[in-house]
Amino acid sequence: MRATLIYGAGDVRVETVPDPKLHEPTDAVVRVLRSCVCGSDLWPYQSRPKDALGDRIGHEFLGVVEEVGSDVAGLKAGDVVVAPFVWADNTCDFCQEGLQTSCRHGGSWGQPDVDGGQGEAVRVPQAQGTLVKLPVKEDDALLPSLLTLSDVFPTGHHCAVTAGVGPRTTVTVIGDGAVGLCAVLAAKRLGAERIILMGRHASRTDLGREFGATDVVAERGAEGVAKVRELTGGDGTHTVLECVGLKPAIETALQVVRAGGTVSRVGVPQFADVPMDSRTFMRNITLTGGVAPARAYIEELLPDVLEGRVEPGRVFDRTVPLDQTPDGYRAMADRTALKVLIRP
Amino acid sequence: MRATLIYGAGDVRVETVPDPKLHEPTDAVVRVLRSCVCGSDLWPYQSRPKDALGDRIGHEFLGVVEEVGSDVAGLKAGDVVVAPFVWADNTCDFCQEGLQTSCRHGGSWGQPDVDGGQGEAVRVPQAQGTLVKLPVKEDDALLPSLLTLSDVFPTGHHCAVTAGVGPRTTVTVIGDGAVGLCAVLAAKRLGAERIILMGRHASRTDLGREFGATDVVAERGAEGVAKVRELTGGDGTHTVLECVGLKPAIETALQVVRAGGTVSRVGVPQFADVPMDSRTFMRNITLTGGVAPARAYIEELLPDVLEGRVEPGRVFDRTVPLDQTPDGYRAMADRTALKVLIRP
Repeated sequence: MRATLIYGAGDVRVETVPDPKLHEPTDAVVRVLRSCVCGSDLWPYQSRPKDALGDRIGHEFLGVVEEVGSDVAGLKAGDVVVAPFVWADNTCDFCQEGLQTSCRHGGSWGQPDVDGGQGEAVRVPQAQGTLVKLPVKEDDALLPSLLTLSDVFPTGHHCAVTAGVGPRTTVTVIGDGAVGLCAVLAAKRLGAERIILMGRHASRTDLGREFGATDVVAERGAEGVAKVRELTGGDGTHTVLECVGLKPAIETALQVVRAGGTVSRVGVPQFADVPMDSRTFMRNITLTGGVAPARAYIEELLPDVLEGRVEPGRVFDRTVPLDQTPDGYRAMADRTALKVLIRP
Repeated sequence: MRATLIYGAGDVRVETVPDPKLHEPTDAVVRVLRSCVCGSDLWPYQSRPKDALGDRIGHEFLGVVEEVGSDVAGLKAGDVVVAPFVWADNTCDFCQEGLQTSCRHGGSWGQPDVDGGQGEAVRVPQAQGTLVKLPVKEDDALLPSLLTLSDVFPTGHHCAVTAGVGPRTTVTVIGDGAVGLCAVLAAKRLGAERIILMGRHASRTDLGREFGATDVVAERGAEGVAKVRELTGGDGTHTVLECVGLKPAIETALQVVRAGGTVSRVGVPQFADVPMDSRTFMRNITLTGGVAPARAYIEELLPDVLEGRVEPGRVFDRTVPLDQTPDGYRAMADRTALKVLIRP
C-alpha cells in the first residue's frame, strides 16, 4: 500500500510500504477513508534530523474495518470507524478514568510495526478499545467533521473541560490554528458567553467568530495582554485555553488569566520551563491540560456532530489526494492552509 | 508598644513603635494574645538586604478587640478574634469566590501604616471582613491550635483542597515543616487513606505520622522519587502537596505525581520557572495552589479545632515572650524549632 513517511525537516514522502496484516488477536485492519495533517506533525516537519530510514507519520484517521482479530468484539468488516490519536485498551484503570493517553497497554501511531494514519490502511492494535463505530456510510458528507473526532475537536474540548469552562466562565483562546478554533467551538458548546480569541489571521479568526468567539484580539505580546485586560475590566478571563505550544503563548496566557483562574494548554510545549513564578503563586493560577485523551470524549461529542449542531470539519480548508500529502504539509507550514484533509 | 522589625538577613529586633489607633471607620485595634513565626518569614530572614529603616513583620495573630471603628458591625471590645494572614473586605467578588488573597480592598500585614502581627497590638483594616470571632476566653488552652487558623493550617488545607484530595486519593506531602505537617492533617481530615510524607527530620515526621501520614520517605532527589514510586506500584500518587517552595521540591513533586494527577504548591516559590515540560504535558499533570485564602476556610475548620478533632497547634514546639522573638527566628532558621509561638 501507499503511506506517508517523514525523513527529516521538510522531507515528507509517500511511498509503497507493506500492507498491514493482523498480528494480534486484538488487532483490526482499517482501510483509511480520510486522514489529515495535524499542527503537531509540523514540529517534526520543521525540526526532525534527517536520516535514511524515515518514520511513518499521521495519527488522525477514519476508515472502514477490513478485518478483525479473534478477540475483537463489536466490530466487523464494513463498519465505518474513527480512531482517536492514540490506541488504548479502554479497560485499564487509566482508561476507566478517562485518561486513555496513559493506557497501560496503549501506544502511538506511526511507531515501528504500527502504521501511521496518513496512508491507505492501518493495523489498529487494541481495536475493540480504540475504534469507535460511526453510524454513517463511506461517502457521508459529515466525514470531515467526524474525522475531527480523532484529535483536533476533542483536543479543543479537553482544553476547555480541564480549564473548567462553563456558562459563567469567561474564556481567552490563544491561537487561531485548527486547535484554537476547535477550542472556541468547544467553549461555546459548554456555554461560555464571553470568548476572546487571540489570533492575527483574519480568515481564521472570522471562522472563530462563526464558531462562537465574541471578541478577537489580533495584537500579540504586551499589546495583546493589554487588550484582553481592557476587554475584561483589567482582570483577565477566568480561563485561558493555550492552543499554540510556544513560550510566548504560555507567557501571554499567564498574564491574561484572572486571579484564581486556570490556564489549560493543549499545544505540545516546545519549551522546558513555564514561568509559574511567585506572581502566579500570589494570584493562585492553575496550569492544567496536556495531551488530549480523545477516546474519552468521542461518544459525548458524536451526537452534536451527527446532528449538525457543531461543524468542526470547517477547519479543513484544503483537500489533497494521498500522493500530494507533501504539498499539504508545505501548505500548512506556509500557513496557506489552516488544516489539510487527505483522501487516499 | 513593642513590636518586631526586620532590618536585614539575620537581623530581627523588638522595638518600641507607636501604639496603633483607628484610622478608618472600618478599622479595629486588636491587642495580640498569641503570634508566631512563619516559614515564609524565614525567606527575608535569610536574604533581605540590610537597611536602616526596617520593616514590621509577622502575619499570624490572635487577640482581643480593644476598639472598633464606626463602620464595623458584629465585633466589640473584649471579643477574642483570629486574623487571617491577609486582610480583606470579605464582600468583593474575589472574596465571595473564596479568594480573599486577591481582595479588591485588601492587603498585607507589616506594610507602611499597617502593623505586623509580631507585636503587642495591631490596627486591623477592613476589620469586619477580616476578623473571625472565637468563642473562647483569653486564656483558653486551645489558643495555639486556634492561632494556626490564621495561616498554617488553612495553608495546608488549601493545598489539599486545590489538589483535589478526597477519600479515594493517594497523597504525597513534600516537606516536614509546619505547613507540610498541616497538609498531612488536612489530607487526613479530607479522608485520604494513603498519605506519604517526604521529610528527613524524625521528630517532625513522627508528628506527621500522628497527624495521619501512613508512610514516611526520608530520602530526597532521585532516591526519594524511586521510593515513592515503589510504594505506589510505580505510578506515583494522585496528588502531591508541595509545602517547601524550593526548586528540588517542585521537581520531585512532578516526578512522584501519577499521570492525570495534580501537584499543589503552597510554599512560596523561590524560583521563577517550573519544569512543566513535554513529559508533564504527555502525562496530563496539573499544577495548582498558591497563597492560601485562609479567611475562606476559617469557619469550616474552626469546629474541628474547637471540638479537638484536630490539633494543629501541636506544630508549636517552642514558646517565647515577645522580646525573645529574635531567638525564635534563630531557632527556626537553625531547625532547632519547628514553629515558634510568641506570647506578648
